[in-house]
Amino acid sequence: MATTTASPANHAYRVCLIGSGGVGTIASLVLAKSGQAHVTAVLRSKFKHVSEHGWDIESIDHGTLQGWKPHRVVGSAAEAAVESTVEGDGSQKVEFDYVVVCTKQLPDRNPVVPMIAPVMTAGRTTVVLIQNGIGIEDEIVAAWPTNTVMSSVSHIGSGIEEPNKVVQVGKDVSKMGVHYGPSSVVAPCSSAPASGSGAEAEAEAEKTRKAKHAKAEAFVSMYNAGGAHICELVDDIEAARWEKLLWNGTFNTVCALTRTDVGEIQRSKGRETLLLPMMWEIWHIAEAADHALPDTIVQWMAYRLPDDCAYRASMLLDLENARPMELEVILGNPLKVAKRLGVATPVMDVVYKLLQVEAWKIEQLGSM
Amino acid sequence: MATTTASPANHAYRVCLIGSGGVGTIASLVLAKSGQAHVTAVLRSKFKHVSEHGWDIESIDHGTLQGWKPHRVVGSAAEAAVESTVEGDGSQKVEFDYVVVCTKQLPDRNPVVPMIAPVMTAGRTTVVLIQNGIGIEDEIVAAWPTNTVMSSVSHIGSGIEEPNKVVQVGKDVSKMGVHYGPSSVVAPCSSAPASGSGAEAEAEAEKTRKAKHAKAEAFVSMYNAGGAHICELVDDIEAARWEKLLWNGTFNTVCALTRTDVGEIQRSKGRETLLLPMMWEIWHIAEAADHALPDTIVQWMAYRLPDDCAYRASMLLDLENARPMELEVILGNPLKVAKRLGVATPVMDVVYKLLQVEAWKIEQLGSM
Repeated sequence: MATTTASPANHAYRVCLIGSGGVGTIASLVLAKSGQAHVTAVLRSKFKHVSEHGWDIESIDHGTLQGWKPHRVVGSAAEAAVESTVEGDGSQKVEFDYVVVCTKQLPDRNPVVPMIAPVMTAGRTTVVLIQNGIGIEDEIVAAWPTNTVMSSVSHIGSGIEEPNKVVQVGKDVSKMGVHYGPSSVVAPCSSAPASGSGAEAEAEAEKTRKAKHAKAEAFVSMYNAGGAHICELVDDIEAARWEKLLWNGTFNTVCALTRTDVGEIQRSKGRETLLLPMMWEIWHIAEAADHALPDTIVQWMAYRLPDDCAYRASMLLDLENARPMELEVILGNPLKVAKRLGVATPVMDVVYKLLQVEAWKIEQLGSM
Repeated sequence: MATTTASPANHAYRVCLIGSGGVGTIASLVLAKSGQAHVTAVLRSKFKHVSEHGWDIESIDHGTLQGWKPHRVVGSAAEAAVESTVEGDGSQKVEFDYVVVCTKQLPDRNPVVPMIAPVMTAGRTTVVLIQNGIGIEDEIVAAWPTNTVMSSVSHIGSGIEEPNKVVQVGKDVSKMGVHYGPSSVVAPCSSAPASGSGAEAEAEAEKTRKAKHAKAEAFVSMYNAGGAHICELVDDIEAARWEKLLWNGTFNTVCALTRTDVGEIQRSKGRETLLLPMMWEIWHIAEAADHALPDTIVQWMAYRLPDDCAYRASMLLDLENARPMELEVILGNPLKVAKRLGVATPVMDVVYKLLQVEAWKIEQLGSM
């Protein structure tokens, strides 16, 4: 019987990581450092350079590394899915335990399901989405209903400098958790058990829940073992996602639209006229979706940064550089939830429509 | 008795024109050409150059003129108000019949009342505002309650090229009319007659009304005599102002915010998601303010220009060049009316607040 290459016994988990930007490369480093995973990284634009030279990393969590590589670097998910046998006389499918997705969330341009399909094993592979937005797990759950789907809300600060340098300035702090049911974007359905009594079905559901929790626990344990600053396993990951949206759906979007940095939007009073009303809209959507956030969080989120903060939000950088923005998962999906649950979102509505015009302009440039 | 200089009998009306940009210079030309007015133009930045060289004009209505000057060119309103006597042995105050204001409407930076105060004679001088926006007459009415205040809604296309060239590409088509009472911005008050019976007061009011109408009629007649393409005297000039706001409050503001030309905002579907809802908000404010517009006007205004129209709205040009925008009279004042009359304006509200951030940025640049 053929065995897979480079899979020592202590690298118990086979992990495929897709999207090796600033966030993804540090995640691949953490997972490899844990000693618990064999990490295959799927790179696209950087494949050639990194497969030859590796990554040069300057990290607040991991120090300086020169020419670092995960266990395997490949140019596509299809390539990741197949390994040659040790004997070199053939190839075989790799069964991944975890597929970690760190790409930008662009459902129209770069949907996750076809991206990860080659590396997924139904009923086995756990998907870990380290991405922005709301409702991002729905299409994964729909495509692989028996697999575990987790997501991470990351506060890491990390970016890429050409051609192969990763600079991590903000510590790797994140929350992770399992998506047990349909998200707030999809109307929750009371899925009646296909057979058996209510008690039997409930026992079955509890078993499934425990199994999913165990997979998440193993991943988070591995992630902490790899030297991440802190990774917390939480029960309600959707609440954590709504909490992060208080920032991403407000500062990120309005700073992009008005071409302002954080300090400017604050000094202009745009925080009071626009951001706070939007934050409360998000707070009320989260509440209506049964992921209530603390009352105090809005004030804290709005006033935590100083008025001379020159931070330029990621969507502003995308807009300035005519790169696609994560608009649909950051405002589009939350607005679908709001509509379904009857929550008023007058400010978000208009900001969304204005940013759709900006997205259209970026699209035109891309298609020229 | 001293007589004023250069005031031949046929130049019956003394006119002072303030703000000689593309619109104002053509207005001064029209008034001078009528043969009915002696025109004093108040220039600021261009005073020195134009007083020496005059204007070079290329006009769709008036042909080509080299070195054209109105009767008198001065550097300030204070200067306009005083003329030397024919004998040259002294000076005397000029009593203007009309003061025509063609400056940008910037109530905070450049309010009209102090600007025109030196050339106003209480009870005599009629003010003609050839400017954008809503509620622009209020402060004039408050400062000179017995004077006639008119405004013009102009569709002229005319601009300045450095240093002294005026290029008029769009015909001088306008509506003018008298503001008889307080605008929609100020809550209308039922001004009880100070004395006398109701019938007497009514007769007095009718007499005042007729006198104001006569002054407007004379001005419009003079303006048409001067070769304007068409100038129409209308009873409800406020309705005409709301009608123009259907454009200025929507295309102008949203194109500025999204940095799009007219064709781009249309092709991006921003017309349907943003402009049409805003136009209906304006339509409903006008209706609530007793200046109902026809139902068909919104559709016409939204779809009159082709999808490849590369026109860049004036507010967009202001924003791109970091010049102050006419935001308060174009959105600020209409929103005050909406608030007073209880009209919902969710889209205008947010566009206004976003443009306030842009205005703040422009202010910062100016104060640097």
